[in-house]
Order: sequence, then structure tokens, then C-alpha cells
Amino acid sequence: MGPTPPTLVTLTTDFGEGSAYVAAMKGVLLSINPAVRLIDLSHAIPPQDVRHAAHFLATCLPWFGPQTLHVVVVDPGVGTARDVIHAETDSTQILAPDNGCWTPAVERMGTAPRVRRVTEPRHWNHPVSATFHGRDIFAPVAARLSLGLSPHELGPGADTWVRLATQTYRSSQDRLTGEVVFADPFGNLQTNIPGVEFQRLASQAPTIRVGNHEVRRVVRTFGEAVRGSVVALVNSDGFLEIAEVGGSAARGLGVGVGTPVEVA
Amino acid sequence: MGPTPPTLVTLTTDFGEGSAYVAAMKGVLLSINPAVRLIDLSHAIPPQDVRHAAHFLATCLPWFGPQTLHVVVVDPGVGTARDVIHAETDSTQILAPDNGCWTPAVERMGTAPRVRRVTEPRHWNHPVSATFHGRDIFAPVAARLSLGLSPHELGPGADTWVRLATQTYRSSQDRLTGEVVFADPFGNLQTNIPGVEFQRLASQAPTIRVGNHEVRRVVRTFGEAVRGSVVALVNSDGFLEIAEVGGSAARGLGVGVGTPVEVA
Amino acid sequence: MGPTPPTLVTLTTDFGEGSAYVAAMKGVLLSINPAVRLIDLSHAIPPQDVRHAAHFLATCLPWFGPQTLHVVVVDPGVGTARDVIHAETDSTQILAPDNGCWTPAVERMGTAPRVRRVTEPRHWNHPVSATFHGRDIFAPVAARLSLGLSPHELGPGADTWVRLATQTYRSSQDRLTGEVVFADPFGNLQTNIPGVEFQRLASQAPTIRVGNHEVRRVVRTFGEAVRGSVVALVNSDGFLEIAEVGGSAARGLGVGVGTPVEVA
Repeated sequence: MGPTPPTLVTLTTDFGEGSAYVAAMKGVLLSINPAVRLIDLSHAIPPQDVRHAAHFLATCLPWFGPQTLHVVVVDPGVGTARDVIHAETDSTQILAPDNGCWTPAVERMGTAPRVRRVTEPRHWNHPVSATFHGRDIFAPVAARLSLGLSPHELGPGADTWVRLATQTYRSSQDRLTGEVVFADPFGNLQTNIPGVEFQRLASQAPTIRVGNHEVRRVVRTFGEAVRGSVVALVNSDGFLEIAEVGGSAARGLGVGVGTPVEVA
Repeated sequence: MGPTPPTLVTLTTDFGEGSAYVAAMKGVLLSINPAVRLIDLSHAIPPQDVRHAAHFLATCLPWFGPQTLHVVVVDPGVGTARDVIHAETDSTQILAPDNGCWTPAVERMGTAPRVRRVTEPRHWNHPVSATFHGRDIFAPVAARLSLGLSPHELGPGADTWVRLATQTYRSSQDRLTGEVVFADPFGNLQTNIPGVEFQRLASQAPTIRVGNHEVRRVVRTFGEAVRGSVVALVNSDGFLEIAEVGGSAARGLGVGVGTPVEVA
Repeated sequence: MGPTPPTLVTLTTDFGEGSAYVAAMKGVLLSINPAVRLIDLSHAIPPQDVRHAAHFLATCLPWFGPQTLHVVVVDPGVGTARDVIHAETDSTQILAPDNGCWTPAVERMGTAPRVRRVTEPRHWNHPVSATFHGRDIFAPVAARLSLGLSPHELGPGADTWVRLATQTYRSSQDRLTGEVVFADPFGNLQTNIPGVEFQRLASQAPTIRVGNHEVRRVVRTFGEAVRGSVVALVNSDGFLEIAEVGGSAARGLGVGVGTPVEVA
């Protein structure tokens, strides 16, 4: 009476591209289930940056179908009392440390997760090292789930789990205040101001401020402005974004995650 | 009466290794066709560098078999009036922006492509964002082609498309002039001087110049010269290349793409 | 009477993430065997660093099952008289240059390999370039092995092959001396001092020195010490490791591969 086993297992870690640790995890997964299909999502999450991982997962997990198990090893608490979590909804399954990295993604998908603590050592690789649960717990558990192991076998259900503190965002009739929550590899600055809220105010030609900088141009797409312009747009994720056309707004403005953003 | 559907889909982007944008594209592809086989070619194309992408694709695409669909998202014009192109020959299929990134690869394969503009929104993911066609157009179209959608359904045929300006290369009886067209990750400098032309002159012990530097040693392979030597050789792609054995000629000579090369 | 053909082919190179050379190898493999399953292990081995490759492979190869063929192209001697080696044991198969990069992994797996020199040009792609055997020898040979070609067809058996010089490690009643053999992407310093040896002395509260630095704290896992502490622990590979919690010991101590380590 468990769900259909996942046919795809994705991997997201902070081990670095080309890490031997990722390779060892793949070895464990494939030695237990030689037929499992592995998809690398990212191994370039900045080391131990749970908030970055959370933003990454919220951006991409909603695009995957059910029958996918997402394994996330961004785990500064490895070897301490933190739990490993298995969370599932009708549209996804996640195996992750109980540090909140996975909750924004599930919130964006909009259904309440069924959560278990992964405590049953029978499904792990022994001896379990103190520092590499990716290889000794996450990989063998994921492989066994892909072979049909029911999530009920992993451990007890959970009612509470760690959630990340939500970032400051306030909306009033004529003023939105938020912050930069992510700088992508191009240096584009994603904010936590929803695009629909921004568009509500846009007709009033509001002033947009990022830190001390005023952004003077609003565009629909990068190609509308000349190279070097700093522009505001609603990005593909549905949030207000500040970008430098053909360049890096993060570098150009000297601005990063946490910088206040105001539309008024 | 369409061709056999591709069984492999390769991905080439400038989104950066481990990018959430690549992960979102994989999610869309796999949610539409859970059986599609994805092969990462590169996500490390320098941002918006169409010429680099063109060289990359010309180097590797000819080695793939038919039944492969190559999806290329190096797309500085995203959201503007530029078209998305589907090109096919008897040996390959490509989905790419109409910016010329794909044409040198097809020219090297030596058969004329059948080209269509991808204009039929029925096969896209809606709403289509203005800035992320990789996720909203390229990925769903590629997934549907892999499920058997005929390219004829994508949009009208095209007779013209953007081609990259070819780089200067001139050959005479006793003199070849070209330029550096690519620096690989080792710092080896690939030129656009064909190896067969170089070998025609090699018996005359010509002088080889890269910018202001004279290259004094011609070898067949790196191991023939001592560490630190700057050498010329015909590379695995069939072109004249300048390399520093065990080092980086790009750094050592302070030379890069566009530097003139002369053999005389 | 050959072994069961490998169903998985892994790739480890020093070509750089997103390299066109890796992509060309994938093209050759997939054009010969469109059903072969490719797993990227790493393309981020530092260029021509055979010792790094050896440590990488020893860390991850033992976790893979049989039916896996590991293709390793870290090959400073490409195009010279160095041979290509096919090595197999009951638990693995490896195709690598004869430069010792593969021997520590096989030694760790604990069974004697059957080794052949890959000399039979019938299975290669022609013309064979002088500088890119990854594409012209390794990839086509791997693809044909995955299709059932017997290793006996590759070339003659070999009794000798290149082994890497082992790194200095000495153990006495009350003193262990070794060296840093690897710095991982987090800056953690792995030594060649076995964890069991270290634990034998640990009850005597020994002094641990890395270069000129004394490490004062021994932990079981990173989470036991505060951010910024430099700690010693037995790592997931079973060796003594020096780490800075939440930071980089390599950078913090200014220490790298080859630095002496003493426990006394």
C-alpha cells in the first residue's frame, strides 16, 4: 500500500562538481539498484549554505513530475543529533537533512507533506561514518526506495520539522519592501517581492531601490535595454529581479543576498 | 512520415554548472517524457558567448550518432524577436536560438540542414516567461520530439538563418594567416589554420608566429617536448594548435581568442 | 568465456567540467552503443595530476558494483610510448593509462587484477589522433566492451605496470608519522595515517602536528566543535583528517598535500 517506487533519483549536494564524495554516493546507489536512473541537479551549492539550497530547490523541484525522489545532502549538522527526513506529497518525494532546506520547495508546490524521520538503521550501509551520511544513509535509503521499499519502513512519522525563518517582505497600498534572496551565476539579483505585487504598483511608475541604488528602467526582457543598463523585471520564477544587461548586477552594484529592496 | 524520434537529448547551456535553471529544464523534460535519456554536454559555456558555443558544438556534435537531439540554450536574445530554430540532417537534430551557434557544427558534418522556425505555441509550457525559454519552449519541445512529435508540427520551414561571420583565414603558396579561435581549459590555443595546409608548408621549416611570439618547435604530441616548451602541433580536431607542454600557452604568452597567427 | 559485459560506464577525466573533449567522448560511446549508460564521476581532476586522480579513484571506486567499467583519462603521456591498460578484478573493470592512477583503487579493493595492454587497433577509431586518445581509443574500446567484446581481444596480458610511489607513513609503539595526501573542496586535509592506528594512540592524548601547527581538539564529527575550531577526526574513508569546522583548514593553516603530520 506504499506509493509507486520512484524511477528517477536526483542528487543535490554542496560537495563540489567532480567530488569523490558524489562519486561514492553514485557507487552506492548503483551497486544496490543497478537500474536506477540518476540525475545530477547540482553539486555546486555553496558549502553548508542551507538557505542557498532552499532557494535552489524551490526554483527547480516544482518542475519535476511525481515518481522522482530528490536526495539533498547539504548538511552542516552531519553526525550530530539532527535527523534525516523523508517527505512526500502527491507530486514529489524528498530525502534531506532536517534543516529546512526542503520546506520552501514543498510550500511552493502547495500541498502538505507527509514526513517521516529516517531512523531505521536496517536500511543503511554499515559501519555508518560520523561525517558522510550521504554515502552511508542517504544513498542506500534512496536506492532501496527506488527498489520499492515503503517509506513506512524508514522510521516514525513526524509532526514537526525545522523550517527556515522566512525573509522579510511587506506589502502595503503603495509600498513594497523586501530583500535580495539570491544572486544567480550571471549576477542577477532575485528579490522576494512577488511579480504580481510589483505589477500592481508599476502603473504608478514607482521608484525602485536596491540598497543605495535607484533602478530607473523596468523591462519585460533583457534584450529591451542596452548592454550595461541596470534594469528591473519580473523573472521566470515570478519575482522582481534586478539585473545588469550583459553584465553582473551583483558585481556592478556591489550588492548581494540580504540587501533591502524597496518599491514605492 | 517524420524521422525516427530521438532517443537521446543532450543539453548545452551557459547557465553554469549546477545551475537551478538547468535543473528546471531537466524537470520539464522528464515530467513530459520520464523515459527520455538526458546527456549533459556543457553548462560552462561563458555567459552569452555565442562564438564559444559555436566552437564547442563544432568540436563535439559530429561525434554523436543520429537519434540524438541537441538542445542548445546560449541565448542572449531571449525574449526579443529572435526565433528558435529546429535543424536536422540525416545525422543530427538541433534545437537552438537563431543566433548562428549551431551552424559551424552542421557545416562540419557536411550536409545541408532542413530548418524550421519553432513558432507553434501549442507545444510550449504556458505561461511562457520572457526570460527563460530554455524551460518554457526548448525543454517541452525537445521532450515532445522525443515522444514522436514530427518536426513539421513545430512551425514553418525556413530558407535563411543567422550565420556567424567566419574568422579570417588566408592561404597562399608559401604563407598561411589565421587567428586563435579557442583557448581550451588547459590554455592550449586552437587556430583556424587547417592541419593539412600547415603540413603542406611544414617541410619548408616555416616560421610560426602567434601575435609577437615565435614558436620554434613543431611536435606530433605533447610528450615529445620538455615541460615548459611552447610547441605547435596539429590537434585532434585537425587544426594547428599552439600549446605549452605541462602549462598554459594562453597564460604563458598572454594570448587569447582573436590573436593573429602566421605560418610563412 | 569472457565476463559479463559492463552495463555502466563511468568517466573520470582532467578535461574540466563542461569540456568539449568530454562531450566528444560521450558522442563516440553513444554512437557505438546507443544503450550504454554513462555516469560522470569527475572531470575536475587537476590537469595531468595523476596522484590526485589516484586518490579520487581509491575513494570512490570501491563503492561501485561489478558490471561497471571505469574509464579514466588523466594522461600526461598521451601520444608517447605509454600503454593503455585494461584491468579487471571480480568486482571492477578499469580502462586507464599505464601511469599508476588506477592501482591504489584496486589495492584498496584487495584482489589482484588481471591486466592487459590495449594494443589491438582494430577496436579504435581511425585515424587515431596523437593527442586525444580519450576519444579515439578509450571511448570506442569502452563502448565495444559494453557491447560484449571480450577483454582478451584488446591485447596481450601484462605482468608489470606502473605503480605510484607510496607516500611516507611510519608507525611505532607511540608515534605515527605520515603526510597530507589530499585536500578536498572544503579544505579538509586527509592524511595517510590509518584511523585504527590513530585510535590506538588516542587514549594517550597524543600531540597532533600538521607542519608547524598543533591540533588540540579530537572529535568524532564536525558538529561537536564550534565554527572556526581546527579539529582532528577519523574521516569517512577511515583515515586521520584535519579540518576547520565551517571553514578551510588548507587555507587557515596554509598547508597542503605533502605537509608532514605527526601523532606522538
